[in-house]
Amino acid sequence: MRIAVLGGDGYCGWATALYLSRKGNAVAIIDNFLRRQWDHELGAQTLTPIRPLAERLSVWRELTGNFIESFVGDVTDYDFISSVVREFKPEALVHFAEQRSAPYSMIDRKHAVFTQVNNVVGTLNLLFALREFQPECHLIKLGTMGEYGTPNIDIEEGYITIEHNGRKDLLPFPKQAGSFYHRSKVHDSHNMMFACKVWGLRATDLNQGVVYGTMTDETVLDEALINRFDYDDVFGTVLNRFCAQAAISYPLTVYGKGGQTRGFLDIRDTVRCVEIACLNPAARGECRVFNQMTEQFSVLELAEMVQSAGAKLGLAVEIDRLPDPRVEAEQHYYNAKHSKLIDLGLQPHYLSESLLDSLMNIAVKYRDRIDTSLILPRVNWRCPNNDRRQQVNGSAGASVETGQFEGAELARKQPA
Amino acid sequence: MRIAVLGGDGYCGWATALYLSRKGNAVAIIDNFLRRQWDHELGAQTLTPIRPLAERLSVWRELTGNFIESFVGDVTDYDFISSVVREFKPEALVHFAEQRSAPYSMIDRKHAVFTQVNNVVGTLNLLFALREFQPECHLIKLGTMGEYGTPNIDIEEGYITIEHNGRKDLLPFPKQAGSFYHRSKVHDSHNMMFACKVWGLRATDLNQGVVYGTMTDETVLDEALINRFDYDDVFGTVLNRFCAQAAISYPLTVYGKGGQTRGFLDIRDTVRCVEIACLNPAARGECRVFNQMTEQFSVLELAEMVQSAGAKLGLAVEIDRLPDPRVEAEQHYYNAKHSKLIDLGLQPHYLSESLLDSLMNIAVKYRDRIDTSLILPRVNWRCPNNDRRQQVNGSAGASVETGQFEGAELARKQPA
Repeated sequence: MRIAVLGGDGYCGWATALYLSRKGNAVAIIDNFLRRQWDHELGAQTLTPIRPLAERLSVWRELTGNFIESFVGDVTDYDFISSVVREFKPEALVHFAEQRSAPYSMIDRKHAVFTQVNNVVGTLNLLFALREFQPECHLIKLGTMGEYGTPNIDIEEGYITIEHNGRKDLLPFPKQAGSFYHRSKVHDSHNMMFACKVWGLRATDLNQGVVYGTMTDETVLDEALINRFDYDDVFGTVLNRFCAQAAISYPLTVYGKGGQTRGFLDIRDTVRCVEIACLNPAARGECRVFNQMTEQFSVLELAEMVQSAGAKLGLAVEIDRLPDPRVEAEQHYYNAKHSKLIDLGLQPHYLSESLLDSLMNIAVKYRDRIDTSLILPRVNWRCPNNDRRQQVNGSAGASVETGQFEGAELARKQPA
Repeated sequence: MRIAVLGGDGYCGWATALYLSRKGNAVAIIDNFLRRQWDHELGAQTLTPIRPLAERLSVWRELTGNFIESFVGDVTDYDFISSVVREFKPEALVHFAEQRSAPYSMIDRKHAVFTQVNNVVGTLNLLFALREFQPECHLIKLGTMGEYGTPNIDIEEGYITIEHNGRKDLLPFPKQAGSFYHRSKVHDSHNMMFACKVWGLRATDLNQGVVYGTMTDETVLDEALINRFDYDDVFGTVLNRFCAQAAISYPLTVYGKGGQTRGFLDIRDTVRCVEIACLNPAARGECRVFNQMTEQFSVLELAEMVQSAGAKLGLAVEIDRLPDPRVEAEQHYYNAKHSKLIDLGLQPHYLSESLLDSLMNIAVKYRDRIDTSLILPRVNWRCPNNDRRQQVNGSAGASVETGQFEGAELARKQPA
């Protein structure tokens, strides 16, 4: 199958492109390297030393004989993306090419506007390019479980049957996303549903949980194929972040009560879920939603698991509770359905002790690369202007109206 | 009260600004005249000969002694809009300053992207400007009843209590909006709900129905104060459009079966609803939704009412059924709740024969200004590229996959 992976140089995109290539698909990576640019902006870098895309691809070809084509450009540039669609003629188009960090979108107005415009325009461009040039192509779009927020009812997969005043209808599940980034994904979902309806496009919206892990069967083949591992406060996802913290015996940063519960999955399941979506395309006119997660955990549960895994390696890991820089429920009901991908053949890699051990080992292997100034949260949801530069230089952090925000102060604390 | 009216040179905005000014409020109009620019782009003009804003405002001051301040600029320009907020210090900010035409947003990719970026960024800018400089100010934002689409259950005012698997929660009403424009309003609603939650802003989202009428007690005071009356296929709203068609005995253009049912209201109720929202502000942290409509009609019902009103004036008015250029249900359940504004004191002007007669009279008065080439629909939802220029010049219209789209052919037909 001809599969275009947009954002194929990023964390999930890279692992997915290699996996799909190894499975014999003709894969193209489309990327503009903005993700690497954001590292420069934030003064951060992945824990693992990733290589430039050209080197990654040439090593992949050497090792496996598989050629992955690459197109360098921006999905918000319609001339570019429509010409890629016309030239490559994908049968499936996997869209990871969005700004995907909630804290990044909450830094200030410019970052909020950038995130929403970038994500919404990129997805609109893809919808128009497919309508104009490749209407049979299956759009597989990465959404997020965060689109749903934390309602007090079970979360269904995209749609819910509502009975009301004696009538009923199957309607889009109400969305209560918790950041301007998460809202941008909600906007995308709405635009996709509409485009499928009016143009008969076929789409799958993968509402993905928080991804952990970095190794897949493909990325371990060579050091040059290593995947990203983000541990900083802006792009780091919680479990990877905790492992990096534990590796240097830095207290795990639990925000608030730690009862925030989310869906999670192993990156090896991410790549398989995308493959399942490719192999089972949505019908023309259908905008299908899969909840792409395998388990749910609270943040505190994860912290305790990492603490135990650290102890086995002789690391003394404390848990620190910081005031929550986000505005979110710190204790809540959470029950998110996620059976559709299982029904189509997903065999989950559940979070086990051995996986945690291997995650910890990676973190320990690269721990000399950890910059502790990047760990504590410096983006406060309540503040419309989070000046990260100032904070990096040690001056006062943003004040929270409901109590002093301690991020900046804690940031000066050194790890044990 | 100090009230800023964004988009105050437009159809609803102008009537609202005058009404609030006459009631003794300190009113400022913020506008960039994009609405007038779109007329130039489309080769259209309002049926009624509106005057430049400066002239309108100086006549208003002469007649009433009331000064309406004006700020010329774009809400997507943060430097501009934040400086207006700091300088004018509004207690209420009424936001009409969006691209509000569904067909305009469906012309092609550029118009879709423009509509969503313009509307979403404008509203984001306002949210940030209020958070930074005027957090007590009440944001009154024009949404649309079209955000809900036509679900098979009763439409509530913004939120719905959902019982599901033995649990329940009050959640945002699911949205199924029918154009990229309507979706942009859905995006705005989601962003507003979020900003109210995280920043404690106060907002009212007025999900307005289709507005008809042009005269208010204020606009009739002088010919120079006359309001817009759009009858063209892109910006004309259905009842005004039918009246203009009837005035020249042009067949009324009903799309499809005509069973499309929507909420409607008189422009005199629009201005009063905005006043009611101003006088009864939302609480800090609250994002309140009012369904701003007073009655519901199907398109065919309206056509028949206009046909009768025309007959009284001796006009022979036929009803023409065109293939629906939109993708929408042509027959459907529709029951939209709209009691919140009534509870706060709205006394509706229902659509009566006498009002229809007066609407017809206005249309007849200005009928020499009607350009019949602007009546038939030339924007087809199914087509990603509607080249209006080509169609104006008489060449083939966009083809509909489900049958030939007849707009262009009909456009060459002359009125009786």
